[in-house]
Amino acid sequence: MKKLINDPSKVVVEALKGMEAAHGDLIKVSYEPAFISRKEPPKKGKVAVISGGGSGHEPMHGGFVGLGMLDAACPGEVFTSPTPDQMEAATKAVDAGAGVVHLVKNYTGDIMNFQMAADICAADNIKVETVVIADDVAVEDSLYTAGRRGVGSTVLTEKIIGASAERGDPLEAVVKYANYCKDNGRSMGIALSSCTLPAVGKPIFEIGDDEIELGVGIHGEPGRERIKIKTANELMAMLFEPVAQDLSLKQGDEIVLFVNGMGGTPLIELYILYNAAFELANKKGVKVVRNLVGNYITSLEMQGFSVTIMKANADIVKLWDAPVLTPALRWGI
Amino acid sequence: MKKLINDPSKVVVEALKGMEAAHGDLIKVSYEPAFISRKEPPKKGKVAVISGGGSGHEPMHGGFVGLGMLDAACPGEVFTSPTPDQMEAATKAVDAGAGVVHLVKNYTGDIMNFQMAADICAADNIKVETVVIADDVAVEDSLYTAGRRGVGSTVLTEKIIGASAERGDPLEAVVKYANYCKDNGRSMGIALSSCTLPAVGKPIFEIGDDEIELGVGIHGEPGRERIKIKTANELMAMLFEPVAQDLSLKQGDEIVLFVNGMGGTPLIELYILYNAAFELANKKGVKVVRNLVGNYITSLEMQGFSVTIMKANADIVKLWDAPVLTPALRWGI
Repeated sequence: MKKLINDPSKVVVEALKGMEAAHGDLIKVSYEPAFISRKEPPKKGKVAVISGGGSGHEPMHGGFVGLGMLDAACPGEVFTSPTPDQMEAATKAVDAGAGVVHLVKNYTGDIMNFQMAADICAADNIKVETVVIADDVAVEDSLYTAGRRGVGSTVLTEKIIGASAERGDPLEAVVKYANYCKDNGRSMGIALSSCTLPAVGKPIFEIGDDEIELGVGIHGEPGRERIKIKTANELMAMLFEPVAQDLSLKQGDEIVLFVNGMGGTPLIELYILYNAAFELANKKGVKVVRNLVGNYITSLEMQGFSVTIMKANADIVKLWDAPVLTPALRWGI
Repeated sequence: MKKLINDPSKVVVEALKGMEAAHGDLIKVSYEPAFISRKEPPKKGKVAVISGGGSGHEPMHGGFVGLGMLDAACPGEVFTSPTPDQMEAATKAVDAGAGVVHLVKNYTGDIMNFQMAADICAADNIKVETVVIADDVAVEDSLYTAGRRGVGSTVLTEKIIGASAERGDPLEAVVKYANYCKDNGRSMGIALSSCTLPAVGKPIFEIGDDEIELGVGIHGEPGRERIKIKTANELMAMLFEPVAQDLSLKQGDEIVLFVNGMGGTPLIELYILYNAAFELANKKGVKVVRNLVGNYITSLEMQGFSVTIMKANADIVKLWDAPVLTPALRWGI
């Protein structure tokens, strides 16, 4: 194993220190229990939005804490759910009296631990609403997941409901947008290579020199099938079509198109893939109104990519365009 | 070779198409000869800043075209210098009567071809000033380079002189800042793995499962030595110290600290490395006034990182903080 780390047991805490040192103008870090929150204290009466999950998917979620996006993020150990005390502490730290949204990716540990934290906070009279993202069309049920896995839609949802909360929407409205995103975003991914957990020291799966895993999960969970590698255009079509079909995309629809790298994929390849996806959308008469291309929900050094499509409308585009100022996403400010 | 491409000979053009489709609000692409320029035509009387070089280092340089940074970028084939007709066309397209700065990384082909283009443009009464960045302290002379290689300082320089040009500084002032950056920025890198050129199909060098290349170049050029992998803190010290020494960094100095991923390094590791660099700076009594952490000057899917230190002062910080709106860097707007 070749990794740029000091000690497998200190990966998360040292990365948090690095984030705090680099982005201390935007965020602050609590270490016990671990959560990242905005540098500025919460604005009275603003709905708070919290997410979290295993580490190793950076910049998600900690890189999305800041104005116009998350109020706090709870990082677990690598590929491991955060614990309920993290969500509880984060929720209590950022609650500003208007309610808190827990945005949770559909993994059994995350669901269970966020639920425990929500119950504790509810007992303390904090109103918590939980929305679960389960957007990966590759498979039903999986390692760690009953139903579909939660993947790339989470990033888009954090941006959209973060903007809703920031402009002062009440809890019901923020939850309504979260449910919109949950219902209208779908994803699927491909891996060319595996990745290695620092604490384990060997790849989490084996894959041949000419093979890809079609429909891989962000923790290396198996997808639909193991196939020979194809061209970028062919591979993009193998993801784009099932995603579009699941969304019943039709001519005239407007979408946010997100091509995401898994961590080890060169940006030059992501642009080739984006070109392929954009052309597929054009062929269907689907209008790409906004896009995102880059490494935003990763799996350590895994090579591969995913595509996320979210149906959009004027309301969603307005929230997408709203100012955001986080370590990983910033515009309009 | 597993790559997300369609045809090795179309990698650059298809990536340019993807960039244009994704960032058409900011940039436009000329295909023959190939260059990326800002969507808006140049503002009369503004000094233009152009860079370029081989592809495979994305987002550099095309991702840095936009308000407050570059006016145009010329992408060569992967790891190959762009041709003089590209620089000539780009220079003529963005010249707004106030002169053009060619910011060139120190590689023999880049130097030669930018010089030919500058000569042609000069004959057409366009005033071109060339500044060569040669900031890599690892080795003197190298494959493709007489003297030191040009690496990470280029990114910081593009930001700083782009801001100078944007606020209306005359050519001499923009060149003065470019020379400041050239004199006050130094870098060094480490590779954990090689990378594969699409047109070649096999790794450009071999490296053992427990080895790193200390002082590697961005095209995989050999560095100082091949050593066994060490901890992140140790490796960062092996880069930070020679860079700091070359800059004669002393207590009380202010710096911009840039920890750069080579393309295949997970962001979580870059934050661990940033933490190490930040602590080394603190120990020396050197103040990190601004920073950048991420994949900005890459080598395809290479795993590894580089550190760049640039001495700063109030003037440089003001230019750093100025608004920038490009595909890869954006703030203040």
